[in-house]
Amino acid sequence: MSEPSAPKARPVLSIGAEGFSATLRQWHAAAFSAALRHPFIAAMGDGVLRPEQHRFYLIQDRLYLEDYTRVLALAAARTPDMEDRARLARLLQLTVEEEVGLQRRTAAELGLTDDDLRGAEPALVTRAYTDLLVRTGFEGTLPDLLALLLPCAQVYVEAATKLAARGLPENPLCRAWVEAYTAPAMQEWAAWLAARLDRAASAAGPAERLRWTRLYGLACRYELLFFETIWTLQSWPAACAAAVAASHGASVSDAAS
Amino acid sequence: MSEPSAPKARPVLSIGAEGFSATLRQWHAAAFSAALRHPFIAAMGDGVLRPEQHRFYLIQDRLYLEDYTRVLALAAARTPDMEDRARLARLLQLTVEEEVGLQRRTAAELGLTDDDLRGAEPALVTRAYTDLLVRTGFEGTLPDLLALLLPCAQVYVEAATKLAARGLPENPLCRAWVEAYTAPAMQEWAAWLAARLDRAASAAGPAERLRWTRLYGLACRYELLFFETIWTLQSWPAACAAAVAASHGASVSDAAS
Amino acid sequence: MSEPSAPKARPVLSIGAEGFSATLRQWHAAAFSAALRHPFIAAMGDGVLRPEQHRFYLIQDRLYLEDYTRVLALAAARTPDMEDRARLARLLQLTVEEEVGLQRRTAAELGLTDDDLRGAEPALVTRAYTDLLVRTGFEGTLPDLLALLLPCAQVYVEAATKLAARGLPENPLCRAWVEAYTAPAMQEWAAWLAARLDRAASAAGPAERLRWTRLYGLACRYELLFFETIWTLQSWPAACAAAVAASHGASVSDAAS
Amino acid sequence: MSEPSAPKARPVLSIGAEGFSATLRQWHAAAFSAALRHPFIAAMGDGVLRPEQHRFYLIQDRLYLEDYTRVLALAAARTPDMEDRARLARLLQLTVEEEVGLQRRTAAELGLTDDDLRGAEPALVTRAYTDLLVRTGFEGTLPDLLALLLPCAQVYVEAATKLAARGLPENPLCRAWVEAYTAPAMQEWAAWLAARLDRAASAAGPAERLRWTRLYGLACRYELLFFETIWTLQSWPAACAAAVAASHGASVSDAAS
Repeated sequence: MSEPSAPKARPVLSIGAEGFSATLRQWHAAAFSAALRHPFIAAMGDGVLRPEQHRFYLIQDRLYLEDYTRVLALAAARTPDMEDRARLARLLQLTVEEEVGLQRRTAAELGLTDDDLRGAEPALVTRAYTDLLVRTGFEGTLPDLLALLLPCAQVYVEAATKLAARGLPENPLCRAWVEAYTAPAMQEWAAWLAARLDRAASAAGPAERLRWTRLYGLACRYELLFFETIWTLQSWPAACAAAVAASHGASVSDAAS
Repeated sequence: MSEPSAPKARPVLSIGAEGFSATLRQWHAAAFSAALRHPFIAAMGDGVLRPEQHRFYLIQDRLYLEDYTRVLALAAARTPDMEDRARLARLLQLTVEEEVGLQRRTAAELGLTDDDLRGAEPALVTRAYTDLLVRTGFEGTLPDLLALLLPCAQVYVEAATKLAARGLPENPLCRAWVEAYTAPAMQEWAAWLAARLDRAASAAGPAERLRWTRLYGLACRYELLFFETIWTLQSWPAACAAAVAASHGASVSDAAS
Repeated sequence: MSEPSAPKARPVLSIGAEGFSATLRQWHAAAFSAALRHPFIAAMGDGVLRPEQHRFYLIQDRLYLEDYTRVLALAAARTPDMEDRARLARLLQLTVEEEVGLQRRTAAELGLTDDDLRGAEPALVTRAYTDLLVRTGFEGTLPDLLALLLPCAQVYVEAATKLAARGLPENPLCRAWVEAYTAPAMQEWAAWLAARLDRAASAAGPAERLRWTRLYGLACRYELLFFETIWTLQSWPAACAAAVAASHGASVSDAAS
Repeated sequence: MSEPSAPKARPVLSIGAEGFSATLRQWHAAAFSAALRHPFIAAMGDGVLRPEQHRFYLIQDRLYLEDYTRVLALAAARTPDMEDRARLARLLQLTVEEEVGLQRRTAAELGLTDDDLRGAEPALVTRAYTDLLVRTGFEGTLPDLLALLLPCAQVYVEAATKLAARGLPENPLCRAWVEAYTAPAMQEWAAWLAARLDRAASAAGPAERLRWTRLYGLACRYELLFFETIWTLQSWPAACAAAVAASHGASVSDAAS
């Protein structure tokens, strides 16, 4: 096993002809493509996601959206530009109305109640991803947040577009997912994020661009790990699975006594 | 593989005779004990930690301490009590002077420069742990932070105390670690955290105590996963290791061109 | 001159039959009524606001709205409830589109450019009011913010409604103001704020209700002082007016050299 | 009465030979000198501050220090540099131990209890000043905060040094004040703030320097208005004094019933 180490060479962040966000996507092509090609996505497109996987996805995605909308609000608060602020508020509304609405309907079909969605415990990757989002919402700048939000928008829109091109799945829950993420509003949002980040990058120095590259890369990894977590139904790594189980057991027996 | 699910039963958080913090420790005994008994700790106490493990530990622990001291400052800012504020500022100073100083000396012995420590990339668990800390620093209350900081203090002091009782290791770097975490100031800090949280718990309602229980449990898991990460030298899960490697390769080759 | 002192008696915050927000309004009736009856409001309703007063109002109100929309975003970020979050985002959008749009049109009529609005210096009360809003946005809870935002909504809606009942002014700029703040969306917003705060108060303890009372009272005073500042065209108190003028003079002469 | 207006000319912020902080002091010389020469300072140095003024000062200064130490903690949290973090934590401790300790002893001599200090209501300028501090603590950068904290340190150290040069007052409470702010630790703090801001300014662009100039200028005005508020015992402007009195009256009579 080789020793993990800090990357010694400073990456040269020259922006390609297609703009900064396109360069970011190439830079992190390995993680981005692995997310796009993940069996979870394929199963969604083929309509063969197992119900327990679909339920686990809904639960974790609901937890994700709670902080995702929170971070849209934080981005709206942190930006000094009122047009950006209104744009982010519009997306926040859209997300609560459309995505959370879709979740609720799908969850009901799969036998999950609102309480199941609400009180659930986050998987490690859900925690790590959302805690990075919220932390950056309090500490970072608007472009920091754009870099962090872009991979999710791109992966979902690109994945759904590719799946739709192959023909919509018969499974109505999977079909609704594909339709939701090919909707024009989603595509516009992904395009706005990329264009707004490109604009910020054209006025930024190398230190900022390096920071945005790292944030983008982290979000790509988290997208990939999120799909992996759902696919394998493994909420926390094996190393602490026993401890997690024990703590659940304790709470149940204690509550029963 | 069984389907992961939200714990259905609400835990009954009756505080035992020894106080809230002692109850938390029992509640999360599985994760807490697994951290204490982890081979990383045993190897540190026996002075047989491999140099590449020790270097990886120093790099990740340095990243951790950057946000740990940040969170002590946030706790000092969020508490309305000026005595608490001064107490937390005192610990922040102590941490920078003692722990960071020890790190720097040990790192030099192991051939790491300040740049190695500074520019390093966080492992998944380092990111997840510190992002939770900082997020809670902005959103949470003082007791939220106490619950989150307590496991680290307890695990280190308890582990070091047990190791010291078996006799100090000959390896001077491991010995310095054991001595640092058996120092009176560390023991006082752990005791203060527990006592202050006990005081908060005695005036709190069930919703707050449940939240503190969850935060404490998360910190226990992260302590365990942190040791596992160091021990196995695995910075990120296998599922995205290839993507991580590809992104490093890209940056190196690009920078060289 | 009598010595200013801390109020010795703790107010008894018993909620009247009409709910907490109505009680707050009675509690702070002196400041609230003084704001409603301020000559600035009467002049707006009679269409006799002097152009330099109207310009100064637009400049200061624009500065206020920049932070007001910021605080709506912060409130959306701090609340754990996604319905509240979407409601606040909707208002944020409305404010940017309606109020800021009205400002811009009125400003153009009065000969102010976008740059005049953007680079302007806040008056003392504008700074004090918005700094309290933003600070509370980062530190406070949702009801803290509701208590702070309620007086502005109530004063504007109530004032405009009374003015409209007397007949709309002929002056088109003043008429647009009266129409804007009697619009149904504004009335709904004021009603929602009051109802949401009432709901929070019914589940809160005396310490929280006391805090909300103080925040509400501060906002009432700031509304009154804001009108007074506009009316008298006095940006900063006489005690530092000379210093303010000197600093402007310095900047102009220095910039000219 | 002339119309207040936004300064049209953009100040040219060329840094003089003595560094940025010295340039700031000259730039805002009118407000800075007016604060230094305020009768409140002279009365403190002559030992003739009236007891009701001294009590009012202690009450408002205590409220100020609560947020001042909070902001030192926020600055420590926001800076990425661990040396700065430790330096700010040291000052925070010093402030709680020295300044708050001095306040408490002086207050006791003047018949004020801890409760008088704790539950007091802030004057307008105390609110405005501390709300700007805390808001900037959450939103701003380290140099933003340095620019905001520098005038207070400079005014107190410079004023006390000049008073001490004339001979210490016989009044022991005034003498303790002069001695506290001529202490070496206070002088070092003021010097560190200036040097650290100079260092930041040498690497900053014009937009940042303009922002720091404005923050410094605001703090100068607030220092001046703070002394004026204490000297005149006028907590809030005349325009809302009646409303403030009415709200106090209401709370007392209500509490008595």
